[in-house]
Amino acid sequence: MGQQVYQHTLSNGLVLLAERMDHVRSAAINFLVPAGSAFDPPGQLGVASVLAEMITRGAGERDSRDLSLALDNLGVDRDESVGAVNMRFWGSTLARNVPAALDIYADIVLRPHLPDAELEPVQALALQDIQSLEDSPQTKVMVELRRRYYPAPINKDRRGVAEDIEALTIDAVRVHFRRFVRPNGAILSVAGNIEWEPLKAQVERLFARWEPGSGAEVRPEPHTAASAHIHKDTQQTQIALAFPSVPVTDPDYYNARAAASVLSGGMSSRLFTEVREKRGLCYSVYAFHETFKTQGTMLAYAGTRAERAQETLDVTLAELKRLKDGIEADEIDRVKAGLKSSLIMQEESTGARAGAIATDWYYLERVRSFDEIQAIIDGLTPDSVLGYLNRCPVRDVTLVTLGPAPLTLPG
Amino acid sequence: MGQQVYQHTLSNGLVLLAERMDHVRSAAINFLVPAGSAFDPPGQLGVASVLAEMITRGAGERDSRDLSLALDNLGVDRDESVGAVNMRFWGSTLARNVPAALDIYADIVLRPHLPDAELEPVQALALQDIQSLEDSPQTKVMVELRRRYYPAPINKDRRGVAEDIEALTIDAVRVHFRRFVRPNGAILSVAGNIEWEPLKAQVERLFARWEPGSGAEVRPEPHTAASAHIHKDTQQTQIALAFPSVPVTDPDYYNARAAASVLSGGMSSRLFTEVREKRGLCYSVYAFHETFKTQGTMLAYAGTRAERAQETLDVTLAELKRLKDGIEADEIDRVKAGLKSSLIMQEESTGARAGAIATDWYYLERVRSFDEIQAIIDGLTPDSVLGYLNRCPVRDVTLVTLGPAPLTLPG
Repeated sequence: MGQQVYQHTLSNGLVLLAERMDHVRSAAINFLVPAGSAFDPPGQLGVASVLAEMITRGAGERDSRDLSLALDNLGVDRDESVGAVNMRFWGSTLARNVPAALDIYADIVLRPHLPDAELEPVQALALQDIQSLEDSPQTKVMVELRRRYYPAPINKDRRGVAEDIEALTIDAVRVHFRRFVRPNGAILSVAGNIEWEPLKAQVERLFARWEPGSGAEVRPEPHTAASAHIHKDTQQTQIALAFPSVPVTDPDYYNARAAASVLSGGMSSRLFTEVREKRGLCYSVYAFHETFKTQGTMLAYAGTRAERAQETLDVTLAELKRLKDGIEADEIDRVKAGLKSSLIMQEESTGARAGAIATDWYYLERVRSFDEIQAIIDGLTPDSVLGYLNRCPVRDVTLVTLGPAPLTLPG
Repeated sequence: MGQQVYQHTLSNGLVLLAERMDHVRSAAINFLVPAGSAFDPPGQLGVASVLAEMITRGAGERDSRDLSLALDNLGVDRDESVGAVNMRFWGSTLARNVPAALDIYADIVLRPHLPDAELEPVQALALQDIQSLEDSPQTKVMVELRRRYYPAPINKDRRGVAEDIEALTIDAVRVHFRRFVRPNGAILSVAGNIEWEPLKAQVERLFARWEPGSGAEVRPEPHTAASAHIHKDTQQTQIALAFPSVPVTDPDYYNARAAASVLSGGMSSRLFTEVREKRGLCYSVYAFHETFKTQGTMLAYAGTRAERAQETLDVTLAELKRLKDGIEADEIDRVKAGLKSSLIMQEESTGARAGAIATDWYYLERVRSFDEIQAIIDGLTPDSVLGYLNRCPVRDVTLVTLGPAPLTLPG
């Protein structure tokens, strides 16, 4: 399967990416717009989430109802979501319906009605979302960790805060739309059984007149992370921690990913073996790498019963620290087998490819080929991963726990 | 893409199914064994879950560690789970690794060690799993609904009960294994870039000497469902309800699926429009159809803040009841578009196909072709769905709520 990836930048800055997959009948659309929660202004925390819910409630010639009907008629499985940096529009359908779906998405991002009458139900939904976090301790502990660990503005949660949501006006939502939903910085990717030239021509026709906006840059502020315990009378204690790693732009990025995989990449991985299998401390324990353009982070999570929570934290941290004492060649072989399997699964999914090419462009301003990624994976060795671990040891750990009693961060 | 589906039944009853997908490099394995939680004996509720966790802790020539290593070396992404009727082994990897993975799975189901020393950590995990349900109100309300709605033994939750888990002996686990992990009633399916003849020969070689077991039939007992409120000081009220529909073997099955889709199949569906979009009552509201061989059920879920929970229940039930008053032709057109899109997505995923062919065989003792399903979808009309709704109106509703205050089931 030769890879067929195309790219075109419109004069207003919008980047169009496509990957042709001619063995499938479906296609996926992934549209990133630089209007994530990082840009929520003070006093309006949550406005991006409100905007993402409002923006599909009528656009172009269609009211809210007609817009939903049009996308459902095309069999589009869709979702709008808000990340720290980008707002994301995602849709998946038959490849032959992509042109009609793009017509509608152009209305959504260029000509949304943002009707006054829809604000109240959307605010009610946003308030529900904040409230439901209280009944989801696993989700809440990660939100609270990111809020404390990351610098402003990338530490903001998409849900915002209740007072700000309640005080939002339709004018504030419209101002936010005009400022941040803009082509410069936006990436539209399509993967599936599509033809490049007609796609490019359609996107030029639909989006060429989209005016660049001023927007804003994400500039992390100086910050000192602080650990915390959140008291809650839950049955289990939730444990989440984070410490500095390298971002995706760093040559050590795949070494960092490999380190996370040695810890948590399969049933034989270290955290799984020590925490879950040998000690039965918890079902769910994992470490993972997370990246922004400006910084990378290693995170870990475990949820367990209160009596054994300190032991779980101690064992987890001990495994994290022990990594730099040595990694076996066969551990790296397994990491490679796992990463290659994942890569091949990704090649077979239009949704995964539409996401991957957009993410590559966002971070690297280019799309990596399978061969390039394969070569990086092939080049991983115990020494290369140990080199990374010496550069980024376990230090300056931010720990957030949620449950009936606080824990102690060992040594 | 012509469909290439193969089937072979071993003399001990094991059914092998395969779908060749020659445009991919991966393959998925789905192995159903009739050892679900329905067969947990009284006083041993949860034994199937303990067995599923124990069964991979050493098998054949390999101890627990070597077995995990062997599967991770093959890049197998895997999972063992317990449903009401079947225990399921799932694995996904490169197609060329399937033969080696099947060798290991044969050890797991035929020659597990079930070592005494592993019982304690596995019991600890199982107890964690029960406890964590208390911190997951959305999951808990569905568990409690199924427990009250369905007849024994298909109403059992895989987690079991703490007293029984604590009292389990290794002998009880081994007896359960010998009785229920058996070829008669088991279905092994593989989908992906595989060759049928070598696969069939390997499966004959590996599994032909697997001895049939006595097992048991699932025979639902006479039962009267009862509504309930579970008091919990949560922020939100969880609402779950169920009422009788038709099983998958019934000619009206796709009419029932279509009815659920009119309610909840897309952004323009009735429940989504009335509950979420117009009133902002909750983010998450849906209706869905669920089937056993012996009975089908329509279920609905909503989670919302306590003050608006009664309104949410009233609106949801009103929409369910209103369905029989009339369905528009364009609603059915959208249902068809959605079902066809899903079908095509499924054709492109080895995991989805391995699951679908096994499920078809389990319920129907044959695999339906895409053309057959397509023809059924094409044949749906407002009248056919109304015919089903008149046969299975909203009645005998079992309602389970979880939250700070009970609700009233209207009229």
